[in-house]
Amino acid sequence: DPKLKVFTCNANPELAKEIAEHIGVPLGNAQAVRFSDGECQIKLNESVRGCDVFVIQPTSAPVNEHLMELLVMVDALKRASAKSINVVIPYYGYARQDRKARARDPITAKLVANLIETAGAQRVITMDLHATQIQGFFDIPVDHLLGVPILGKHFSEKGLQDIVVVSPDHGGVTRARKLAERLEAPIAIIDKRRPEPNVAEVMNIVGNIEGKTAIIIDDIIDTAGTITLAANALVEAGAREVYACCTHPVLSGPAIERIANSKIKELIVTNSIPLTKEQMIDKITVLSVAPIIGEAIIRVHEELSVSKLFD
Amino acid sequence: DPKLKVFTCNANPELAKEIAEHIGVPLGNAQAVRFSDGECQIKLNESVRGCDVFVIQPTSAPVNEHLMELLVMVDALKRASAKSINVVIPYYGYARQDRKARARDPITAKLVANLIETAGAQRVITMDLHATQIQGFFDIPVDHLLGVPILGKHFSEKGLQDIVVVSPDHGGVTRARKLAERLEAPIAIIDKRRPEPNVAEVMNIVGNIEGKTAIIIDDIIDTAGTITLAANALVEAGAREVYACCTHPVLSGPAIERIANSKIKELIVTNSIPLTKEQMIDKITVLSVAPIIGEAIIRVHEELSVSKLFD
Ligand SMILES: Nc1ncnc2c1ncn2[C@@H]1O[C@H](COP(=O)(O)O)[C@@H](O)[C@H]1O
Ligand SMILES: Nc1ncnc2c1ncn2[C@@H]1O[C@H](COP(=O)(O)O)[C@@H](O)[C@H]1O
Repeated sequence: DPKLKVFTCNANPELAKEIAEHIGVPLGNAQAVRFSDGECQIKLNESVRGCDVFVIQPTSAPVNEHLMELLVMVDALKRASAKSINVVIPYYGYARQDRKARARDPITAKLVANLIETAGAQRVITMDLHATQIQGFFDIPVDHLLGVPILGKHFSEKGLQDIVVVSPDHGGVTRARKLAERLEAPIAIIDKRRPEPNVAEVMNIVGNIEGKTAIIIDDIIDTAGTITLAANALVEAGAREVYACCTHPVLSGPAIERIANSKIKELIVTNSIPLTKEQMIDKITVLSVAPIIGEAIIRVHEELSVSKLFD
Repeated sequence: DPKLKVFTCNANPELAKEIAEHIGVPLGNAQAVRFSDGECQIKLNESVRGCDVFVIQPTSAPVNEHLMELLVMVDALKRASAKSINVVIPYYGYARQDRKARARDPITAKLVANLIETAGAQRVITMDLHATQIQGFFDIPVDHLLGVPILGKHFSEKGLQDIVVVSPDHGGVTRARKLAERLEAPIAIIDKRRPEPNVAEVMNIVGNIEGKTAIIIDDIIDTAGTITLAANALVEAGAREVYACCTHPVLSGPAIERIANSKIKELIVTNSIPLTKEQMIDKITVLSVAPIIGEAIIRVHEELSVSKLFD
């Protein structure tokens, strides 16, 4: 069987290590460093000839550095005769630029898909894409993993009573529905509306949340404006307590301050993106995606080996 | 005739302005900014429908930011129905990663060419590629401009006497030859050799430089190690004075300190890469490439218009 090898660049080496441990292989010997002028240098210090290679690299901030590391790594692996190059992108950067929201907008999520294929990736494993349509931006197989089972398990084990799962906007209802099913709970939706132009948005809550334990779920928490306003609106409207969760803790700009000062009791995130020291506040709990990504890699590797029989 | 429009991102807006002025068009209304999480946002504030568009963006440091800005800008222009998308890359970053110097090296200069084409560029205008082979990495037309005429003109006008043009290594002899022809001067070559492993390199000068005014020429000056050692070796070997010149002033790390402390009397560079305030020391003179790039754009635009007659 072709050997399975796992490599990483600089975006989330801790997660890569955990995944390699889960699979039971050592992390491949390679480094992504910089030349004096800031150009990315990939040092691939072991042979990958004939191997099924998995590169683990979320394209989190600094996104352009991490994306370029990934692309150059894939180029190096391709030229070093890897049998298959599989990129594992737990957090897919630029996912929110997935359509022309305004005239003359780029569609950077599609551009990035093209760049990854052009570099030579043959398969993608990713998690909770901002829009599932992004799968269709690729012409190679995409394994799309979900954070909901991990988040759901955490809340189940907490033994919370009288739960309502809340979507912070219309776009997230399907995701909230999935978590609600796992927790056998009803859902509610925050319906933001601007009554007139230049008048502040009002938060209208659709669904019954009074006296309940609300769990807000989103895919990405970036500046945390949406989720903290939602949490405070829920408490004002009579929710007993408010938890929040997301797969991808982008947490840029004022996010941590807003979360710290909000009515959110606990925020559950995954390690698709590593937190900095400053981001590790008491309110935030991190769950690991290493087991489900590890399992996905094992499954893909088996598939690649089986398909070899038919080649 | 389709309208000519010139755009820029953040790598060298001053040069772009100069080029637009030379051509006699206003600089297009577009901005490359950042979202809170560092993702690149391109705001294309005017129509480009049916236009021949030229985007001016050297991929200088921070190279990955500037490259991504360029790619996203090209994506936006393509989706906004530009008639032709021409990228002007006065300095082509990653050019030194143009071959597998070691086992398992990536060939990032080729990767970058593929990325630029994938984004949707239909033509490239660039200057003094580190290796002319990089033209062949593209499957679209490449106009390759040279810095030697600009540098040569400067030295001619200085009226220096008894010149010798020096290549700091074997790879640069052709370039030195071209400058020497313009100045009707002989050439010399610095022949670095390591007598034994782990023994310092010795600088052997091939050619007659005694009592002469030496002009060292290179394409890129990065950390300035090569060129300052060469200058000092030339003075020690009896050169009367030493000038240095290059097209692309990368000037990373210790470059400015080394140049300031070296025997180089004057360093002539172009504005393919903008200098920071700290880099603008008295010894350095900057020549503008705006006229030759402007002329190249006018020529390409005419060509595109003529070819339309045969479409
Ligand atoms: N990194 C980003 N940060 C904030 N907003 C973004 C980012 N990328 C794209 N957007 C914008 O977010 C909107 C899409 O978000 P959504 O409506 O949640 O799908 C579009 O208007 C995008 O221009
Ligand atoms: N940005 C860079 N800074 C320094 N060295 C580089 C850079 N990019 C590539 N190289 C190395 O420079 C060598 C090629 O330079 P050259 O021999 O001048 O063509 C190769 O060994 C590359 O690995």
